[in-house]
Amino acid sequence: MTSPAAVPRGGGREAITRAARESFAERGYHGTSIRDIAARAGLSLSALYHWHAGKQELLTALVEESTEEYFRRCDEALRDAGDDPAARLRALVRATIEYRVSRQVESTIAASEWRNLDPENRERLDGLRAAASKLWADLVDDGVARGVFRCEHPDDARRAVVAACNAIAQWYEPDGGVGVPELVERYTAIARRIVDCR
Amino acid sequence: MTSPAAVPRGGGREAITRAARESFAERGYHGTSIRDIAARAGLSLSALYHWHAGKQELLTALVEESTEEYFRRCDEALRDAGDDPAARLRALVRATIEYRVSRQVESTIAASEWRNLDPENRERLDGLRAAASKLWADLVDDGVARGVFRCEHPDDARRAVVAACNAIAQWYEPDGGVGVPELVERYTAIARRIVDCR
Repeated sequence: MTSPAAVPRGGGREAITRAARESFAERGYHGTSIRDIAARAGLSLSALYHWHAGKQELLTALVEESTEEYFRRCDEALRDAGDDPAARLRALVRATIEYRVSRQVESTIAASEWRNLDPENRERLDGLRAAASKLWADLVDDGVARGVFRCEHPDDARRAVVAACNAIAQWYEPDGGVGVPELVERYTAIARRIVDCR
Repeated sequence: MTSPAAVPRGGGREAITRAARESFAERGYHGTSIRDIAARAGLSLSALYHWHAGKQELLTALVEESTEEYFRRCDEALRDAGDDPAARLRALVRATIEYRVSRQVESTIAASEWRNLDPENRERLDGLRAAASKLWADLVDDGVARGVFRCEHPDDARRAVVAACNAIAQWYEPDGGVGVPELVERYTAIARRIVDCR
């Protein structure tokens, strides 16, 4: 058997981040030890501690990076989409699907392990998640206020659209035959019906 | 401090099931030890082993019971709903929401811990979950075949409806002001729009 130290899998920080992601995805936060992560990254425990303070910091960094990335993609998509509520809806559906499909593992970890963030980390990341959620809420509320969306219960419509797009992370297979552009078309049509777009 | 053995919280099997549910919900499968469960149930470890073979059996029993319960409720709702696709859609939306609201904790555990079922247990429960999923698929496909639902992509429409109803488990608060009958109305309307019901 090759010793872990003999098979480094990339630069320190990046190898550790990847190893943490794989370990959390397979065994969950509590099922993963810092030794598992070091071994998977091909590093000694002391080398790992050179880069990271511990398991909680690794989970927080992973969830924070991916939540920020989601917010950034949504924000950018909306800036490019102009003012029309239907175009903005499509933009946010597309950003969400592209994110869920390209970050399936992080999506699953964030959903399962959010409860294992330490309170101060969770509070900060709750704020970030709420900011992304507010992009959706503002979009739907604006469409309703302007009479473009006719749904009676904007909060439930928003939750339904987001849940439908998020669920793609659970079943999507990159080689499964349906490409992302086609998914975006299908879910934009579903989202338009959910908000009852004129 | 009272010793655990002095505070039994109910009949053996029931107390253990409840303790396992609470522990898995709080700390996850890997974060829970069989000693935690025994202590929470107010039982000695040997008393726990009298009732249950171990942690895996407890997780399997919990997921199996709740998945069976979901299937049973859906099946019953459909039997009472008659033949009309729109009435059947409402029945399945209602059964799903009632289940998610009354079994929020089990819903979350099943979603997070399914991967921690042993392969043979997972295979059996995958079958049970697929049977519930097939009730939904048959309903939507039948509505489309009869021209009552006009959605172009029945599989995506079905996934969107199920995801929207399932997500209720994540945010619903029993004292939050919106009762289950009102939720059923709102989500039936959303589901009808998703499948594009005439």
